Amino acid sequence: MMDMDQDPRKRLCFADGRRKVDYVLVYHYRKRSSVRGSPSQHRLSIISNGSYPLGVEEKDQEGRKDEPAEVVVDVGPPDPADGEKIMIREEFEGNLKDAGLEIEHDKENKAHGHAFIRLHAPWQVLSREAEFLKIKVPTKKSYELREEKGLAATMNEVWRKLNQPFQPKVPHQEQEHSRTKFLSHCFSRDKLHLYNIKSKDTFFDNATRSRIVYEILRRTACTRTCQTMGITTLIANGVYDSAFPLHDGDFHPSGQAEGKNDRQLLHDEWARYGAFYKYQPVDLIRKYFGEKIGLYFAWLGVYTQLLIPASVVGIIVFFYGWATVETNIPSQEMCDEDQNFTMCPLCDRACDYWHLSTACGTARASHLFDNPATVFFAIFMSLWAAMFLEHWKRRQISLNYSWDLTGMEEEEEHPRPKYETILLQKRQRKKKNTKNKNETGHEKLTWRDRLPGYLINISSILFMFGVTCSAVFSVIIYRITISALMAMSSDPEVKSNVRVTVTATAVIINLVVILILDEIYGMVAAWLTELEIPKTETNFEERLILKAFLLKFMNAYAPIFYVAFFKGRFAGRPGDYVYVFNDYRMEECAPGGCLIELCIQLSIIMLGKQLIQNNVFEIGIPKLKKLCRTLKDKERAPKEIVEQPGRRQQWHLDYDLEPFDGLTPEYMEMIIQFGFVSLFVASFPLAPLFALLNNVIEIRLDAKKFVTELRRPDAIRAKDIGIWYNILSGLGKFSVIINAFVISFTSDFIPRLVYQYMYSETGTMHGFINHTLSYFNVSNFKPGTVPSISSLGKDITFCSYWPDKCLPLIIWYKDYREPPWSTEPYQFSKQYWSVLAARLGFVILFQNLVITMSMLVAWVIPDVPKNISEKLKKEKTLLVDVFLNEEKEKLQLIQSLFSRDLTQEQQEELKVSDQTSLPLQQTQPGQLPPTSSPAPRTRPRAASFSQFTRQMSMSPRSDITQHTAV
Amino acid sequence: MMDMDQDPRKRLCFADGRRKVDYVLVYHYRKRSSVRGSPSQHRLSIISNGSYPLGVEEKDQEGRKDEPAEVVVDVGPPDPADGEKIMIREEFEGNLKDAGLEIEHDKENKAHGHAFIRLHAPWQVLSREAEFLKIKVPTKKSYELREEKGLAATMNEVWRKLNQPFQPKVPHQEQEHSRTKFLSHCFSRDKLHLYNIKSKDTFFDNATRSRIVYEILRRTACTRTCQTMGITTLIANGVYDSAFPLHDGDFHPSGQAEGKNDRQLLHDEWARYGAFYKYQPVDLIRKYFGEKIGLYFAWLGVYTQLLIPASVVGIIVFFYGWATVETNIPSQEMCDEDQNFTMCPLCDRACDYWHLSTACGTARASHLFDNPATVFFAIFMSLWAAMFLEHWKRRQISLNYSWDLTGMEEEEEHPRPKYETILLQKRQRKKKNTKNKNETGHEKLTWRDRLPGYLINISSILFMFGVTCSAVFSVIIYRITISALMAMSSDPEVKSNVRVTVTATAVIINLVVILILDEIYGMVAAWLTELEIPKTETNFEERLILKAFLLKFMNAYAPIFYVAFFKGRFAGRPGDYVYVFNDYRMEECAPGGCLIELCIQLSIIMLGKQLIQNNVFEIGIPKLKKLCRTLKDKERAPKEIVEQPGRRQQWHLDYDLEPFDGLTPEYMEMIIQFGFVSLFVASFPLAPLFALLNNVIEIRLDAKKFVTELRRPDAIRAKDIGIWYNILSGLGKFSVIINAFVISFTSDFIPRLVYQYMYSETGTMHGFINHTLSYFNVSNFKPGTVPSISSLGKDITFCSYWPDKCLPLIIWYKDYREPPWSTEPYQFSKQYWSVLAARLGFVILFQNLVITMSMLVAWVIPDVPKNISEKLKKEKTLLVDVFLNEEKEKLQLIQSLFSRDLTQEQQEELKVSDQTSLPLQQTQPGQLPPTSSPAPRTRPRAASFSQFTRQMSMSPRSDITQHTAV
Repeated sequence: MMDMDQDPRKRLCFADGRRKVDYVLVYHYRKRSSVRGSPSQHRLSIISNGSYPLGVEEKDQEGRKDEPAEVVVDVGPPDPADGEKIMIREEFEGNLKDAGLEIEHDKENKAHGHAFIRLHAPWQVLSREAEFLKIKVPTKKSYELREEKGLAATMNEVWRKLNQPFQPKVPHQEQEHSRTKFLSHCFSRDKLHLYNIKSKDTFFDNATRSRIVYEILRRTACTRTCQTMGITTLIANGVYDSAFPLHDGDFHPSGQAEGKNDRQLLHDEWARYGAFYKYQPVDLIRKYFGEKIGLYFAWLGVYTQLLIPASVVGIIVFFYGWATVETNIPSQEMCDEDQNFTMCPLCDRACDYWHLSTACGTARASHLFDNPATVFFAIFMSLWAAMFLEHWKRRQISLNYSWDLTGMEEEEEHPRPKYETILLQKRQRKKKNTKNKNETGHEKLTWRDRLPGYLINISSILFMFGVTCSAVFSVIIYRITISALMAMSSDPEVKSNVRVTVTATAVIINLVVILILDEIYGMVAAWLTELEIPKTETNFEERLILKAFLLKFMNAYAPIFYVAFFKGRFAGRPGDYVYVFNDYRMEECAPGGCLIELCIQLSIIMLGKQLIQNNVFEIGIPKLKKLCRTLKDKERAPKEIVEQPGRRQQWHLDYDLEPFDGLTPEYMEMIIQFGFVSLFVASFPLAPLFALLNNVIEIRLDAKKFVTELRRPDAIRAKDIGIWYNILSGLGKFSVIINAFVISFTSDFIPRLVYQYMYSETGTMHGFINHTLSYFNVSNFKPGTVPSISSLGKDITFCSYWPDKCLPLIIWYKDYREPPWSTEPYQFSKQYWSVLAARLGFVILFQNLVITMSMLVAWVIPDVPKNISEKLKKEKTLLVDVFLNEEKEKLQLIQSLFSRDLTQEQQEELKVSDQTSLPLQQTQPGQLPPTSSPAPRTRPRAASFSQFTRQMSMSPRSDITQHTAV
Repeated sequence: MMDMDQDPRKRLCFADGRRKVDYVLVYHYRKRSSVRGSPSQHRLSIISNGSYPLGVEEKDQEGRKDEPAEVVVDVGPPDPADGEKIMIREEFEGNLKDAGLEIEHDKENKAHGHAFIRLHAPWQVLSREAEFLKIKVPTKKSYELREEKGLAATMNEVWRKLNQPFQPKVPHQEQEHSRTKFLSHCFSRDKLHLYNIKSKDTFFDNATRSRIVYEILRRTACTRTCQTMGITTLIANGVYDSAFPLHDGDFHPSGQAEGKNDRQLLHDEWARYGAFYKYQPVDLIRKYFGEKIGLYFAWLGVYTQLLIPASVVGIIVFFYGWATVETNIPSQEMCDEDQNFTMCPLCDRACDYWHLSTACGTARASHLFDNPATVFFAIFMSLWAAMFLEHWKRRQISLNYSWDLTGMEEEEEHPRPKYETILLQKRQRKKKNTKNKNETGHEKLTWRDRLPGYLINISSILFMFGVTCSAVFSVIIYRITISALMAMSSDPEVKSNVRVTVTATAVIINLVVILILDEIYGMVAAWLTELEIPKTETNFEERLILKAFLLKFMNAYAPIFYVAFFKGRFAGRPGDYVYVFNDYRMEECAPGGCLIELCIQLSIIMLGKQLIQNNVFEIGIPKLKKLCRTLKDKERAPKEIVEQPGRRQQWHLDYDLEPFDGLTPEYMEMIIQFGFVSLFVASFPLAPLFALLNNVIEIRLDAKKFVTELRRPDAIRAKDIGIWYNILSGLGKFSVIINAFVISFTSDFIPRLVYQYMYSETGTMHGFINHTLSYFNVSNFKPGTVPSISSLGKDITFCSYWPDKCLPLIIWYKDYREPPWSTEPYQFSKQYWSVLAARLGFVILFQNLVITMSMLVAWVIPDVPKNISEKLKKEKTLLVDVFLNEEKEKLQLIQSLFSRDLTQEQQEELKVSDQTSLPLQQTQPGQLPPTSSPAPRTRPRAASFSQFTRQMSMSPRSDITQHTAV
């Protein structure tokens, strides 16, 4: 026992220290009542139906067979309620043994606790299943990759050298740079000589082994005790507590550098914040966690990498705005105190008239984000999004190639437990109703069964839409009322800070609402998807993702959409304001334009969401959960854990970790972030930078979680990132139209352009501010809305009451409307319509131009990288050659075996046998020309010879072999 | 000889009347000079390297071998220039014989003429190649299709009955309705017992046979005499004249109905105008012409079928316009002679002022196409296009399924002859330059080699763009000058018909130009694509199609685009007209709006193009060509043809037909038509109807051509219609934006809407005409442009010269401009900008709405029909079952053979042999548990036994077999 603890590798093995534990099943038991299952079964601990792998001494083999008592354990009989579960477990484990797995039970004496069942897959099972699953493995045959010459080679070398410090120090990684590549081929037991099998114990890596065991667990049925199939159903029914493969060992760095297991390697080279500047060891991640998780991290890596150029351009755009703010004429004009624009008060009665020059600050800030460079940046980011998708497609295909996934077929899936249960119920119901009809067995759930689910779905989603909208509306109401109340306050300190206070608190409230609703919506989406009763797990996942994305996207973006497109557009005009609740004026944008508010909103929500989700939800909550669990466990069995701290095996350690529950939350977080980066990028060029900074941390955070905090996930094969790609591409397309609208409607870009080229007399921007303002006659204010105390003195009010006696005071407001003295006072002016036409025209132009350009980008970049398609072709030819040569050799061998002792008579005999209908003895005429073909001496030999030739002819190119043989 | 003529089937055979001619090679020879090739080779006529198919009597086999002189022919030695060609032919035919083909030469004595080489593929070759090409064939195993019950079944039955008269009477077709389906599997020579082989001569149909022979012809190389590969290169080099498979016989209906060959069936049930109302026998077309042509006709069928609902809706929309023309207020107002709008003259000096009510006719005609229903129709047609594409995708997958194309891999293609030639040249050039370097052999053409080609390409395409534009512009100039000249004519008859004459002649000129340029562009595109040196034929085709489409599309649509979006927009305004060549005013639209002109243009070009292309290019030109060829041939050898009219074999008949030169022109015609149907459908709702009428004829016309006028094309496998689908989907997307612009800018839909909801005081359309007109002060005419003779009397001119003395005369023109008395006279008015904004807003709304809806349609309709995906799954399981059962049987058989005489000792021997490294003798441990496994007596037997078990273990599910065996 002590010696097992010393060698960390033995902690992953059965009690014999040889056979690796590939999978662990856990259940909870209580030793309280009498035995109900067949007692004879309880005595067994290691049962294997297959023969022992070759290479193990005979003695050991026999020894194990004769004395199974070494690790015999009495699994405690549980209370009556659990009796059925025990029987199910017995049947299930019996079926697993039938499938060839070897099983080890715990040797536990505790009253109750967790029982661990360890599974080991012997070579025989591994090879059979590998063939069945068409797992590709490297063959002995390798080929030289074509070396580049001249300039290209030098460039490559330089690039490699420059990249060296960023490469993780992973032994596997180095092979990538070598010049030889091993051909891969689907594993097949009758082609074993092709593969480079050094040891049958290590030929399949741990992830593959556990995948194979998982596959068996998934398809093993329990027909006798309960009519279900697969471990997922059993876990869902509470028969087992959990099922997971084991980690490769401890992740704490051990002393010797060479003996690092993969988990340690991953921990040292990947799952550390210190490694943030390095590439990810994607191949190792894939080897350890499987293709699906490997693809997630590869995708995250590509995304993060491509954020670098986007951030750089974003920073340049931002600095361009910063550098030009001093020379920008509109903001200069706005800050110019000589141009004394007296503006309409911002609220009724309590607010005073104000001077435009006091809004100088926001005007300058606005220019940082609202300048011509932003338009360029929006176009750039749309093309960037197209580029990103194309680049990822290529990367995916490269990974598919190097991970030997090309030509992978879709695996057939079993129905989900929930689906099966409901199908069973339906069948029973139907049986009751129509007893005379014969059962078809071809039953499936129709839309009628799903109709209630769909109805609830639609109504719930509509309700959630309502909730989100009302949340946004509540915040608006909050903002309106608070700012009105604060404006009425007598404290000048309060009054001066109205805007800042209100905006800040409102955004924070928004953020909190978003975060809370985000969690709720996640749960609601899962619940709704269950109601739809999807048939398979993939189906379930897709529907869940779509729904969750819809809800979370709406939740995160509703307030931003409001600020970008609706705020200030329903406020009315001086003298004809729009009121809510009869008393509160609808809010207007800040004098600098809505863009700056959009920018603030966007940055706070983006940063806040990322910071809080990263810190609280991804670090805090799991820690809290773990704490809870530990406390609970301690309460339950406080002694046992303390009792044997030194004897904790890997499965005990792993069981203490959190179970892995899918990549959906990780992807979702990133996709919502991608939305921030692409959707409103025209208003916030620094978004890519913030995303980049977040992702650099996010990668390591996720890595840490996967390596140290989660149980090892099942290695799942996947060719692509699935529906996420569609969502990304949809977001990319949506972002074009959103950006078009932001540029033309939220920013002042178009009005400036129109002014410069249509109205400006000098062709410069001078006079632009004047152009955007309209005149207002104070006498047109509705009674009771005129400022009660005004810094402009009493004259104005006086004058406005008797308009005939003095010239009415003219003040300004921001809009394109006819002046009071026009024939249609306060109607939209010609300028308004021309600017609107220009804005709409810009939207059309921008949208179609950018979409055409993105399509061009997608069309120009080929989906399959050229070198990959060439390599694939080459490998195909090489493999055919390998097989042809092999067959040639075989044929020659057979010929040398048979040709010596064949006579003409037996050849005749062969001919007769050819015409019988036995499939075994059918030989093709012409396959062996009579003049040269040898005939076997006896009937069995003849059969076997034709057998040989038949096998030879299996390859479609056997004609070539035949020619050489003749 | 006589007896051969009597049986039409024998006309397709070798001289022995048994072996079918699968392919014919033709070359031209002249008997003039001495023999240069090896004379011994010339004596042979039928040489086969394989053994004769089983079932033929031995006597015949030997007889043929001993007396090859029966059909011996002395191929006339040609003149010295052709010597090399003879040698190439000899080598090539020798290689064909090596590949297993059987060859028959002509027995000709003529001085010169066409020599026919007939090829026959014996069973051995067919089976080998079928395996190599992975041709799927039906197996014996069939399964019942699930019958529907209840309402669905009744509906189906009714539908089938209703459809009965539209179904072509083709025997093959009926099988489709039967309830059983035969499983298909790739042909494999060692699974012959699986297939339903009644006769080896007829197992593969004629199309498959010729495809196999073509495959051999394609890959057979001539390494000795010329370094080329494949028949295409040889034809390109003039070694052969042509190569084609034979038709199934005569297409003229023979007496007996039962004995109809496929060609006759096709002719009777498909290639007749009388059958226009019937479905096409797509399966038979595919069987006879191969998948690629089958897909074309299936696509054409789907398109034509879907045009029916589109036409119906189009007719309804048209009738809606027709029915509402009386109640339409704008056209009523326009025709109302009381509302006396005096309009600006249509040309300078020569034209008089005119009354708007005289344009009443065009206004009413305009309403037929420019009414609210058109907007609905445009949306409908966009969705229709999306539907069509989705429907076709599904149909394609259904066809793939029923034609056993699922899982078809892309075949590797050989480079084109041109590419190879240029590569050879490059290699030789390189060799000369760098003699010391070792040749890599990995040469390929880089962008540097292609650069000149690309440059010529780009400049030529730009030039063609220029040509098209100048053609359009010339027609404009023609129109402007002719109308100006005609207006100046003194004949009132001429004057009154100006518009009609000019429009009609101009459109006809346009049409002629389009038709001529269309042919030229087709040739230019082919020439340009050759310059690009594409590597493979597919590559070549794709590039050619793209270029040809670009050029032809531009050509056909440039004048239409001009009328839709540019005509009348650069004409200026009264008093400030735009002049071309200093003298001619730019043309304006008719008073009824440009839409009616667009409609005329569109209908004439569409109808004219279809009628002329169908009649002249598709019927006339081929007939003319044929006539030319016949005349030429008669001139050359007038006697020989007359000499033996009774003895003309099928290959002679087929050689007289036109060679098949690809589907590109057929597709191109349809795609351009699809453009007419979708692009400007908002202006011409009857387009689908005309397209439908055309297509009903087009299908039969094409069918006639394929069945009676063309040599049988090679049966080419194809899974889809390739790049055409992309072009269709691109056109569909483009049509959305074009229709949006047509509705908002060309039609009066938006101005009417704006008037009704913004400006009309009553909320009705009354006063709309007034609203669209602007005032003009006659005194603002430039000197010399005032009408010289006016019906309004002299007062106007008088008054306008002294504007101070009398009120200036106010006349009207169609535009939204400020009146002369405004502060900005003749500037665009507020109405102009608001209408423009509305137009642009509509474009955005329409485009995004329709694209979203089409995407929704595409998303809702699944690509793979549900029943197909279910069937595919079912077939997969059934096939696995078939193989598993088979292996089980085999294993049992072997066991019964071996188990009797095996002892324990030999089993040990087997074990030892297992550990040797010979691949042949490697057996898996655990495959046969020692307790039950039998061991062979002698070493060879042991080997063969392990061989058996190895084969058994090939199937991934062999574990199951093993369990039953143990």
